[in-house]
Amino acid sequence: MRTFVLDDSETKLASGKRFSPAPERAHYLLRVLRLSQGAVFPGQDSRGKRYLITLESETPCTLSLRREEEASAREVEACFRELPEQGPDFPPIIFYQAILKGKKMDQVIRQATEAGADFIIPVLTDRSVPQFTPGEAEKKQKRWEIIVREAIQQSGATGTTLLLPRSLKKVIEDPPMPRPQGGGREVKLFFHERPIANGSLHGYLSGEISSITAAVGPEGGFSPKESEMFLQAGFCPLFFSGNILRAETAAIYGLAAIRALVAERDIWRLVQ
Amino acid sequence: MRTFVLDDSETKLASGKRFSPAPERAHYLLRVLRLSQGAVFPGQDSRGKRYLITLESETPCTLSLRREEEASAREVEACFRELPEQGPDFPPIIFYQAILKGKKMDQVIRQATEAGADFIIPVLTDRSVPQFTPGEAEKKQKRWEIIVREAIQQSGATGTTLLLPRSLKKVIEDPPMPRPQGGGREVKLFFHERPIANGSLHGYLSGEISSITAAVGPEGGFSPKESEMFLQAGFCPLFFSGNILRAETAAIYGLAAIRALVAERDIWRLVQ
Repeated sequence: MRTFVLDDSETKLASGKRFSPAPERAHYLLRVLRLSQGAVFPGQDSRGKRYLITLESETPCTLSLRREEEASAREVEACFRELPEQGPDFPPIIFYQAILKGKKMDQVIRQATEAGADFIIPVLTDRSVPQFTPGEAEKKQKRWEIIVREAIQQSGATGTTLLLPRSLKKVIEDPPMPRPQGGGREVKLFFHERPIANGSLHGYLSGEISSITAAVGPEGGFSPKESEMFLQAGFCPLFFSGNILRAETAAIYGLAAIRALVAERDIWRLVQ
Repeated sequence: MRTFVLDDSETKLASGKRFSPAPERAHYLLRVLRLSQGAVFPGQDSRGKRYLITLESETPCTLSLRREEEASAREVEACFRELPEQGPDFPPIIFYQAILKGKKMDQVIRQATEAGADFIIPVLTDRSVPQFTPGEAEKKQKRWEIIVREAIQQSGATGTTLLLPRSLKKVIEDPPMPRPQGGGREVKLFFHERPIANGSLHGYLSGEISSITAAVGPEGGFSPKESEMFLQAGFCPLFFSGNILRAETAAIYGLAAIRALVAERDIWRLVQ
């Protein structure tokens, strides 16, 4: 079975304390996953911390939580056994996506979550069509959070987080996520429609890496001013030879290419 | 500007003969691309053969064709200049996709075309939900052809072809596309939800390659019988470590990974 994503309010409860999830989440557990009373299943919070959840009663749907460290190794194994294995030391992927119109952005967020983006940051760019009022931004944010939660539950991804949309300039100057831990380079890439540099993806991703930041533009791409801003902030331009990709395809295409190279980084090396 | 896809009936016309495209295609030229009388723009047929098209009159929209070889080098360059460059010797990618429900299949076909699949073959598998009557299959086929055409026009992809849906068994026993030309291995892969082999994508794609066939299953994956069939036909299983991908994400994910490795095949080699 796949993992269940917990709200912050739920994970703040004392261990063993009961709570009732909202009706559509109860529906997911009882009707989609077909769990019945007494079932123990895996859960996680938005930071990837893991929990064992017990279905205490079906009507009303009542759950209780235990933190992973409070359970025996055997219980943890039984509960998490069928979840996909995460690479042991996959560097975190931070993904900036210029905000796209309506369903296109929904698709990008869903696919980027599946493709293992650890942080998704929607950014407003010069050529982003939608410009929100703060009230609309909050509504969008709620919608995207639901999409991420569903994608995490289906795919077993861990720890994808969404932040409120902000301007590209602000994100570059003051990145809203924790600094990567450990050794290795911070790789920063922005996808570009035209070849403006000779760097290869294998070149960018060879050697020890502590984090990967990848930025995908809106329809029409980043503006020349934005490209300049990226270059000055140490981002490398990345051009995929071949077809022109729509913005919503570029996102999953780029993330898949990055994951495929990094997942096999012990298998290849650069030709000297 | 991007490339315009011609019907077989249009490319059979004598050079210079005038014809009128259907209203939605005329709309694309006049309203979306904003071409005006006298404009010369690039076109191609479903096999990637290139043409120079002249917009002879706007109302009614009338076009005429010239084959690439009938134009001067300067005219060809002016016409095709802004199209994306194709890798000079990218091996053809043949993509089998188990038929998915409704819009999911549309999304896969659109993204696979953008990602450079040269042949897309919809296949009926044990766990494919939709089973068509011949009449329905023909309707689907028409719909998919329109999606491919639109994706080609937007992305500048070349030569993507769709064939009528057929059973996986038939496709494996009697592949419906021309045998690859030239030297190198035929690489055949099928994506699998679970690790059933240790082969790496870099391993599969190293060295000289004459063609790449990649198969993606339906929701729930290929059946054990089908996996056995693939193995017996010389297909290698490919498992992407990490998250479980939905079928419609697996398609673009896998194709992007393949393209990224092959596009840079002079840059990396396997660790011995």
